[in-house]
Amino acid sequence: MGRRSDRRKVVRVHGAEATTRPDTLAVEEPLEVRVDGTQLAITMRTPGDDFELAVGFLVSEGVLTAPSQVRTVRYCEDGRPDPTYNVVDVVLSPGVAGPLHHRHTYVSSSCGICGKESLDAVRGQARWTLDEDTLEVDAALISSLPELLRQGQAVFERTGGLHAAGLFTPDGELVCLREDVGRHNAVDKVIGWALMNDRLPLRGHLLQLSGRASFELVQKAWLAGLPVLSAVSAPSTLAVDLATEAGMTLAGFVRGESMNVYAGSHRVRIGPGA
Amino acid sequence: MGRRSDRRKVVRVHGAEATTRPDTLAVEEPLEVRVDGTQLAITMRTPGDDFELAVGFLVSEGVLTAPSQVRTVRYCEDGRPDPTYNVVDVVLSPGVAGPLHHRHTYVSSSCGICGKESLDAVRGQARWTLDEDTLEVDAALISSLPELLRQGQAVFERTGGLHAAGLFTPDGELVCLREDVGRHNAVDKVIGWALMNDRLPLRGHLLQLSGRASFELVQKAWLAGLPVLSAVSAPSTLAVDLATEAGMTLAGFVRGESMNVYAGSHRVRIGPGA
Repeated sequence: MGRRSDRRKVVRVHGAEATTRPDTLAVEEPLEVRVDGTQLAITMRTPGDDFELAVGFLVSEGVLTAPSQVRTVRYCEDGRPDPTYNVVDVVLSPGVAGPLHHRHTYVSSSCGICGKESLDAVRGQARWTLDEDTLEVDAALISSLPELLRQGQAVFERTGGLHAAGLFTPDGELVCLREDVGRHNAVDKVIGWALMNDRLPLRGHLLQLSGRASFELVQKAWLAGLPVLSAVSAPSTLAVDLATEAGMTLAGFVRGESMNVYAGSHRVRIGPGA
Repeated sequence: MGRRSDRRKVVRVHGAEATTRPDTLAVEEPLEVRVDGTQLAITMRTPGDDFELAVGFLVSEGVLTAPSQVRTVRYCEDGRPDPTYNVVDVVLSPGVAGPLHHRHTYVSSSCGICGKESLDAVRGQARWTLDEDTLEVDAALISSLPELLRQGQAVFERTGGLHAAGLFTPDGELVCLREDVGRHNAVDKVIGWALMNDRLPLRGHLLQLSGRASFELVQKAWLAGLPVLSAVSAPSTLAVDLATEAGMTLAGFVRGESMNVYAGSHRVRIGPGA
């Protein structure tokens, strides 16, 4: 149970040659997240760190900000001889409002849904003001993060099929790394780890992503209080707009000694005097 | 409206040098999909081909199989001077059962949710039997698809931030290419195009993906009747299991003259006699 990789038989083709052999793949399994026994969401995820995933998801939804709000997290147990460990129930502490009271639902009786309203909705959920975060980092430090992330991944299973998210200090120390077939899950696992270790808000920290930066990932970073989000690949327009709105530093295409800083460039020290 | 790319100011860092210039990014905006006026889903997507995306999503949900089932597709219009074009309503033909009658919801009163049940759920939705598809293709043809896909993308906007899905004939002819910040949206757009052009099921066709192959993408391919799904990167375990279940050919890590065939290798001709 809970294995992150598994084997399947594969026909490996190279030119005119074909061989059959086992190949290691990233495991994908459904996870049902419940809050106080009620189903909230089902996500396709790589098993492992399931409690952190469930709790981090609730941070991203604007429900949780502190570990004291969680009474317990547990796998569903109904006495079956072979439980799947694919159902996690987050039991909230007395008095903590559940997701039904927090969750954003677009009011769309008119045709008005748009990016601007998406930004407004996240602003309404956000618990931390990033503008106050005085973190400054050298561009060279940001440039080093993708390779540090890859080194961290090498410690885990290598299937070529996993997204990674890594939480770093301004000194480049890897604090927490999580992997998943879904990039949003990898980020939720890191944020859930932070909540359970009473680290929120994540002031003074950087989050490095193995892929692209979407609106949703910037949203998760903001709700965790992260001042710097860095991605190996491109952000979208709405990711940039939300980072700007949040006062977050957003770097993309971080490759070699190059990068694009799309928002919050005041936190990035550039040049020989850095 | 409907632009796929837009510009944002970016600080471009290269070593100790920094320049500020505009950069072209993939647009990400919410799209609300309605069926007969009722909200079904909100997805973050790149504008363009919105009707195809909405209709393709309904194919993937097991609702639609033929264009005659769709009475009309339209943007929400409520007389606002500046509609966002982010709300699409799919009006079904009389007698066509809507998604509430089709949509899979996990029965999870017990702890039993698992990959196996996910496979069962898709099997229950599938309308086409892929085993009957006698398509055979040379491995070399599959090897050529990623480059053909990239060439097709070059015709569209290049932002480095878009996933692509390309529908090909067994001769390597590109039939339909769609791009999106979300890879599932790119696939839905292709499948929606196919439905609206009365091409379902897509027997004898191949779908090439720019990224990885997840369970959800194999599900979409199956519900469109596609016999061959090819991805540049890795599939997950559950993607392989579902392709095997469906009788679909699934190739991954299609790079240069190498590839892994994870399922349905009988359709792939390998070697000098191919």
